[in-house]
Amino acid sequence: MKANIGLIGLAVMGQNLVLNMNDHGFKVAVYNRTTSTTQEFLEGPAKDTQVVGANSLEELVGQLQSPRIVMLMVKAGEVVDQYIDTLVPLLSAGDIIVDGGNSLFADTNRRTAQLKEKNINYIGTGVSGGEEGARNGPSIMPGGNKAAWPAVKPIFQAISAKVNGEPCCEWVGDNGAGHYVKMVHNGIEYGDMQLICEAYQLLSEGLGLSADEMHAIFTEWNQGKLSSYLIEISAGILAYKDSDGQPLLEKILDTAGQKGTGKWTGINALDLGIPLTLIGESVFARCLSAQKQERVKAARALPKHTATPFAGDKQAMITAIGDALYAAKIISYAQGFWLMREASKEYKMALNYGEIALMWRGGCIIRSQFLNDIKHAYQTNPQLENLLLADYFIDAMTQSDAGWRKTVILGIEQGIPTPALSSALAYYDGYRSERLPANLLQAQRDYFGAHTYERVDQPRGQFFHTDWTGHGGKTASTTYTV
Amino acid sequence: MKANIGLIGLAVMGQNLVLNMNDHGFKVAVYNRTTSTTQEFLEGPAKDTQVVGANSLEELVGQLQSPRIVMLMVKAGEVVDQYIDTLVPLLSAGDIIVDGGNSLFADTNRRTAQLKEKNINYIGTGVSGGEEGARNGPSIMPGGNKAAWPAVKPIFQAISAKVNGEPCCEWVGDNGAGHYVKMVHNGIEYGDMQLICEAYQLLSEGLGLSADEMHAIFTEWNQGKLSSYLIEISAGILAYKDSDGQPLLEKILDTAGQKGTGKWTGINALDLGIPLTLIGESVFARCLSAQKQERVKAARALPKHTATPFAGDKQAMITAIGDALYAAKIISYAQGFWLMREASKEYKMALNYGEIALMWRGGCIIRSQFLNDIKHAYQTNPQLENLLLADYFIDAMTQSDAGWRKTVILGIEQGIPTPALSSALAYYDGYRSERLPANLLQAQRDYFGAHTYERVDQPRGQFFHTDWTGHGGKTASTTYTV
Repeated sequence: MKANIGLIGLAVMGQNLVLNMNDHGFKVAVYNRTTSTTQEFLEGPAKDTQVVGANSLEELVGQLQSPRIVMLMVKAGEVVDQYIDTLVPLLSAGDIIVDGGNSLFADTNRRTAQLKEKNINYIGTGVSGGEEGARNGPSIMPGGNKAAWPAVKPIFQAISAKVNGEPCCEWVGDNGAGHYVKMVHNGIEYGDMQLICEAYQLLSEGLGLSADEMHAIFTEWNQGKLSSYLIEISAGILAYKDSDGQPLLEKILDTAGQKGTGKWTGINALDLGIPLTLIGESVFARCLSAQKQERVKAARALPKHTATPFAGDKQAMITAIGDALYAAKIISYAQGFWLMREASKEYKMALNYGEIALMWRGGCIIRSQFLNDIKHAYQTNPQLENLLLADYFIDAMTQSDAGWRKTVILGIEQGIPTPALSSALAYYDGYRSERLPANLLQAQRDYFGAHTYERVDQPRGQFFHTDWTGHGGKTASTTYTV
Repeated sequence: MKANIGLIGLAVMGQNLVLNMNDHGFKVAVYNRTTSTTQEFLEGPAKDTQVVGANSLEELVGQLQSPRIVMLMVKAGEVVDQYIDTLVPLLSAGDIIVDGGNSLFADTNRRTAQLKEKNINYIGTGVSGGEEGARNGPSIMPGGNKAAWPAVKPIFQAISAKVNGEPCCEWVGDNGAGHYVKMVHNGIEYGDMQLICEAYQLLSEGLGLSADEMHAIFTEWNQGKLSSYLIEISAGILAYKDSDGQPLLEKILDTAGQKGTGKWTGINALDLGIPLTLIGESVFARCLSAQKQERVKAARALPKHTATPFAGDKQAMITAIGDALYAAKIISYAQGFWLMREASKEYKMALNYGEIALMWRGGCIIRSQFLNDIKHAYQTNPQLENLLLADYFIDAMTQSDAGWRKTVILGIEQGIPTPALSSALAYYDGYRSERLPANLLQAQRDYFGAHTYERVDQPRGQFFHTDWTGHGGKTASTTYTV
């Protein structure tokens, strides 16, 4: 019996996907550049399974049923191109290459097109959920050449996470859509984590709560509208005691790494001109956290005023912080989905927003109750322009509004930084401002660069220029001296 | 007599630079792809000058003294490469090509290296100040191959703006340094403009002031620590009346464009991992302003609560808004100079920070009193790690602190968006936080991805992993279901 699928790259994610496929009755052939790794896998975790090994790519391809499916679980970048180049001569028309790594969507756009010319059907897929997800049910986000989907679908949907029996895996869209959506997923993950961190600092430093008290709050939050994997594990982390009985969390160094997909999401948003402020601030917050030495120095040079201890109703403030977390999270997802809407047009990806919410509901790091509500909003109105305009979220924002403002003000008064919570609030107030002060900005640009402006009392598309220094104004651009 | 310099590209910036050079006694040869433009220039603005025209690049090069200096004032991108390719065979070893357009610094890095191999000395230079600056004294920021500088220096320093007799033009650094610094200049310009817009909206909507009242405030601000070209022209704009006697500003449409260098600055900051939050928010604020139709719709769906009219001391609040503007501006420049410090290392540009402040003091859009203080800080301590650690700015931040917080709170309470003011405040409080909540973030990453963490009670560089679900915690990553 030939194998259903071949997998290249036996790092832990690759190994776990293979075992997951095997559990679901699929026969998997595996190859790894270092062949001893293959042997160790076959004699170790894959012992007594249907998994077969190959010592060369020729051997691997020879073990596969037609159409052949070869999945790459290798380092993103040139390595992917090298494997593709080596595989293509070994494959036949209609065979399928799948890239399950964290590739940049632009590379997947390119590879999909290049392989189509060679009659090879290409899929680039996001796989989320970490090692444990890969083993027991990840969220899988495939995109690329849809001709490949029917052959791959039974395998991917079988091994993916399930929510209410529905697989967290559906066709995302064309070209680099799978990797694009995974990139945005990771950006949103950055945002969710930063928001939780800000809430934690407000609770601990602002309200002076202990780890045990915060554990209770996060446990309660996980029962309601904030219910999510990240809130759940935060509750668990807050409860965890070091060997000396003290909370382990307080002994962990406060420097976070940032590389890759969060950054890419921010760069792409700048490129497309879509304000993705919350994720942008979250990436930058990680950068600032990493500058620990500089912060220690600055804390001495620019000490905070001794904050007045919080004297209000603590329980009400805790509720307000929960509201802030929820409202800002809605902003983050609204911004992320808006970015995907723009990208879908720009990169011709034909994204399916409701299915994306469904894929994120289970298996991945950002899985949450909340994504049900997003799916529902897109089900109700597939043409929804912005999540914030769905009735459900209008209500949610209205109810959270006062608590959110109270929370950001608490941070400002106490000198506790809330870059994501406050950036989201500024965005929200900007988004629902019929008028923003950009009229002054346009006047400035016209003043110093004759860039022209439009008028509120004239149709769009008519451009005006004023000789600002000719009359009326009291200054000329030549008079300013320093 | 041969010409001192040749200039290619007679759009308005190019024409004005030529006339400026001519005023200072330099003989300029000019070429334009459309030769009728050259004729019109020679018979129009350049009539009765020393300027000579050329109908081909060969003719242009033949008119130049040695070493030949050919300056490109053409569209950034491929056009620059095309001209370089055409010019190189016409030039001799030691001749100089200068690119005065808005090229991406990475292109200038590449071109400097490529031309060095061909013994042509390349300069990429930022030119700021708009048309009027080009004519009467721009800020000029040259970088590239320093071997070219002695020949170019007398011309550039003669035509540049002067502050206290010092030219706003000095060698910036190696490779793409000139265009890099111009890019950051433009990013800072985005930030300065956004901050002024936020102050304007707080004054007009928050305090209900008229254009005339705001004109008086900006005029007063321009006498003190906020004194700058952009504050000055804002005062002029606020005074300008339309033909019906009403302030013209109120009739200008509130949609700003964003393209190019502001965006590049944000992308580069993400790439280098330096938190450039204020400029990032400013770019995104322009994007949001451009989404006018969406905002009009959102203003209906998510109406603001009727804000309580401001009941406090208006004069004190105006002072506070000025303090906020000043403090946030300091943050923006501190972030920008930090980015340049990192870029100088990353791209081997050997940037000279004090000279950069000097170049920005006059001629360009962000020229201000404030840049004297920055220059002074770097003169006092050339190794200064961060502007915020200079005594002068420590005092400035301390004095502005209370007013800044009051201002951001005003915006939050009234639903007036202050993305740049509040992002800067969050950054400031984060920067001077010895501890940030990134310990929770690291714990989360270790929990779901075994990414490990460092400990505060152990030396840096030792990494720990915890089996969070093994004991102590009450949750496991497998238990969460939606």
